[in-house]
Amino acid sequence: MNGAQALIRTLVDAGVDVCFTNPGTSEMHFVAAVDEVPGMRTILGLFEGVVTGAADGYARMTGHPAATLLHLGPGMANGMANLHNARRARVPLLNIVGDHATHHKRYDAPLESDIDGAAATFSGWVRRPMRTEDLALAAAEAVGAAMGPPRQIATLILPADVSWGEGGTPAPPPPQRPAGVVSDDVVNGVASVLGSGAPCILLLGGAANDEASLRSASRIASATGARLLTETFPTRVARGAGVPAVDRLQYLSEFAAAQLEGTRHLVLVDAKSPVAFFAYPGAPGDLVPEGCEVHVLATSAEDAPGALAQLADRVAADEDPVLSPARRPDRPTGALTAEAAAQALGALLPEGAVVVDEAATSGIWAPGATAGAPRHDWLTLTGGAIGIGLPLAVGAAVGVPDRKVIALQADGSAMYTIQALWTMAREHLDVTTVLFNNHSYAILNMELQRVGAHPGPKALDMLDLSRPDLDFTLLARGMGVDAVRATTAEELTVALERTLAEPGPHLVEAIL
Amino acid sequence: MNGAQALIRTLVDAGVDVCFTNPGTSEMHFVAAVDEVPGMRTILGLFEGVVTGAADGYARMTGHPAATLLHLGPGMANGMANLHNARRARVPLLNIVGDHATHHKRYDAPLESDIDGAAATFSGWVRRPMRTEDLALAAAEAVGAAMGPPRQIATLILPADVSWGEGGTPAPPPPQRPAGVVSDDVVNGVASVLGSGAPCILLLGGAANDEASLRSASRIASATGARLLTETFPTRVARGAGVPAVDRLQYLSEFAAAQLEGTRHLVLVDAKSPVAFFAYPGAPGDLVPEGCEVHVLATSAEDAPGALAQLADRVAADEDPVLSPARRPDRPTGALTAEAAAQALGALLPEGAVVVDEAATSGIWAPGATAGAPRHDWLTLTGGAIGIGLPLAVGAAVGVPDRKVIALQADGSAMYTIQALWTMAREHLDVTTVLFNNHSYAILNMELQRVGAHPGPKALDMLDLSRPDLDFTLLARGMGVDAVRATTAEELTVALERTLAEPGPHLVEAIL
Repeated sequence: MNGAQALIRTLVDAGVDVCFTNPGTSEMHFVAAVDEVPGMRTILGLFEGVVTGAADGYARMTGHPAATLLHLGPGMANGMANLHNARRARVPLLNIVGDHATHHKRYDAPLESDIDGAAATFSGWVRRPMRTEDLALAAAEAVGAAMGPPRQIATLILPADVSWGEGGTPAPPPPQRPAGVVSDDVVNGVASVLGSGAPCILLLGGAANDEASLRSASRIASATGARLLTETFPTRVARGAGVPAVDRLQYLSEFAAAQLEGTRHLVLVDAKSPVAFFAYPGAPGDLVPEGCEVHVLATSAEDAPGALAQLADRVAADEDPVLSPARRPDRPTGALTAEAAAQALGALLPEGAVVVDEAATSGIWAPGATAGAPRHDWLTLTGGAIGIGLPLAVGAAVGVPDRKVIALQADGSAMYTIQALWTMAREHLDVTTVLFNNHSYAILNMELQRVGAHPGPKALDMLDLSRPDLDFTLLARGMGVDAVRATTAEELTVALERTLAEPGPHLVEAIL
Repeated sequence: MNGAQALIRTLVDAGVDVCFTNPGTSEMHFVAAVDEVPGMRTILGLFEGVVTGAADGYARMTGHPAATLLHLGPGMANGMANLHNARRARVPLLNIVGDHATHHKRYDAPLESDIDGAAATFSGWVRRPMRTEDLALAAAEAVGAAMGPPRQIATLILPADVSWGEGGTPAPPPPQRPAGVVSDDVVNGVASVLGSGAPCILLLGGAANDEASLRSASRIASATGARLLTETFPTRVARGAGVPAVDRLQYLSEFAAAQLEGTRHLVLVDAKSPVAFFAYPGAPGDLVPEGCEVHVLATSAEDAPGALAQLADRVAADEDPVLSPARRPDRPTGALTAEAAAQALGALLPEGAVVVDEAATSGIWAPGATAGAPRHDWLTLTGGAIGIGLPLAVGAAVGVPDRKVIALQADGSAMYTIQALWTMAREHLDVTTVLFNNHSYAILNMELQRVGAHPGPKALDMLDLSRPDLDFTLLARGMGVDAVRATTAEELTVALERTLAEPGPHLVEAIL
């Protein structure tokens, strides 16, 4: 058994049985081994940002790591922006980065680069096994490291000769380490803070936005008067009718500051203390109000849902959660605006949908319009590196094939990883992409004003996507995805209704 | 004057007056300053790999650095693969990577990442000025570092507050440091090696493939019997009728070994000693034959064309170079094969064309078919990170707007940076792209055999691009580029003739 075969057997035995790939020559033995060892599903992306973003989406929906297969340093670099997002999402993810054979490194061949150095910038765990007999054990450790706690990115650098060499032996799955249990002392401490009568906020992040956590948090809020907020860009939030509704901390820091104003105790539940997304001249970076004390109920290495349940039992034993009522907006009519698009979505969102939101400024009405739609999950851009939406939709659709995935996608962001559409077509993924085409980097026009800059024509030109206009209908068809263009609210609604009813990938271009 | 204004003034004064951009919020003051300070041309790319590859192409054709404007760590990461290629091309290039304000770094905001660590993997020079008053001097030093010698990538990390702060003062252009002059001793040493009667090869790389260098080298070869080779993936080679023809060292190492066999003296002229591109089981990595001595006439920090001229004067004072005769193939007819496409190119290539070659397996006949075409330059994929062709064409067309750029582009590679087509349309660049659509990663099918792997259906599926077929005509039109599909040799020839006659971007999809 060669190294690659032992590696794949080890991964499959450890439950890592999906690999998003963009291989090259140094990965060819891994590629061949996928047929020789059963159980690994391989999914090709035409660009590595698709591969890594898909692994993130898969992890968000399944809780398990997918593997990626990347070609040396440049292949990994192409996937780094979405690995940055995955790091911020705190998902488990396992990169396999092929490298030159150990004896070839010294020649500084053209594709040689510092993989280890670059991998260290986004990985919680990096290893480079140097012998075939060490590979499988390193792979098992990588899976264990990815699963945590805390969940993180593990990067296994795989020299070609370690992959092709004989003498590989599969390793047993890594021990499962449960998330740390939050102590009674911590729970009691937070309970007494909440009972103090001073204004409190629970900020929910990471794993603390699933339905059970939201129910616990809602009970706690009802019993204590504490307010609830979800972090600005959550990894995954349960939403919809029958689920407690929690506002998100706003992106614009002046609005976030208003949300937090007057708070005396901020309790972090698998969330980071709030800071401004960007610095602006004269504006504060730390959003915790003056005089507000910050407490930690659970870190990302701890069982946040469990801690919330404990806390709810402690302070809200008799409370029921406040659930969102079922409520849909009417079908929109007239001009196609971002608000009308949100109404169409709210009117039609199917039960169990997964909404991937990289709609930027075009998406601001979507959460409100879908708050009472049937139960669904919402995934966001966690790390600010645009170009995650379509890949995330790929991974989510692979992870939960029985659920409809709806990608709300801004035009500018879409162009970073537009190749994801091809993978949707190849794998017949059940994704409907709503592509908001407003012909601009609209969010940057806003930011340009906010930083106090005074733009001239060259500056504005750098934020404009209308010369020439992008035609996403043609782009989607060019990659084998059914696509239609909507220019009125009615057209969008009809298109959305049709594509939500038909399995397989579709793109609806909403011309705003 | 704020930092950004002082920075741009300094760059323009130092001759860096083209900036390929993909900005975000942290770069907004730079964006605004482009209107406030005259002289900087900004060119938007929809993905950072377009931006960095274009800067490489610009540098190859002008000898001067362009600037790039990139958005924090993820934006830089998206450009890293083509920066890897630029590093291998040994071109001058200046990255400006926006970062959070100095006082914002400590908050670990979502877009925070280790820019310095990642930049170090491809840059010869990295600096992060921390005060506005230090910025312009750092920028001037960056330009100086990029110009070398040796030419290299300089990365200036620009904190947002250093950019927006007042108190900027433009810095004078950096001193120009000429490439080192190769000593008479070295030239005489090589001369005596060449006169030894033993089999010698001059391997030409970097700057030693311009027309003057090739003429010197040809004279040397005629006088001494030395053979000439150009490195496998040269940055830029002068070619065509009236220019000495020099074979390239082959990519497949068994063929390269055959080219080098029996050589007793290998003289490197701004070239690296030849090694295998990849390791293969049982195959050697170092391609220098047993018993062959390696000599260095000029390093990349030295004046290689000057050294060749000195050497030619020393050993070949009375020799004329051997020039390629003018000769074009007939227009091809019948089935559209890669060979027929090469013939069409050879039949029609205009005087002064710049050929960007990322055609991979589809391009192997192109150099032969164009050897006697009118004088032109040929640019290749220097670092093995695919996805450079279309961006390189963008940069070349910006750098030499009076010359026709012809991009020979493989389908798989094209998809990594397909967004470059939009920039071609926006800037009305005079580029004809010949897109070879063979529906596969054909080179990997070859590599899969060569590494000794035995592929099964899943493996072959990972190298297949036919499910669904990509339609590059639709993709190009979706980005505003005129496109036509050719399925016979005649159709390709007609399409090529038309698009070469019409300015502006065109894409001809050759269905192989």
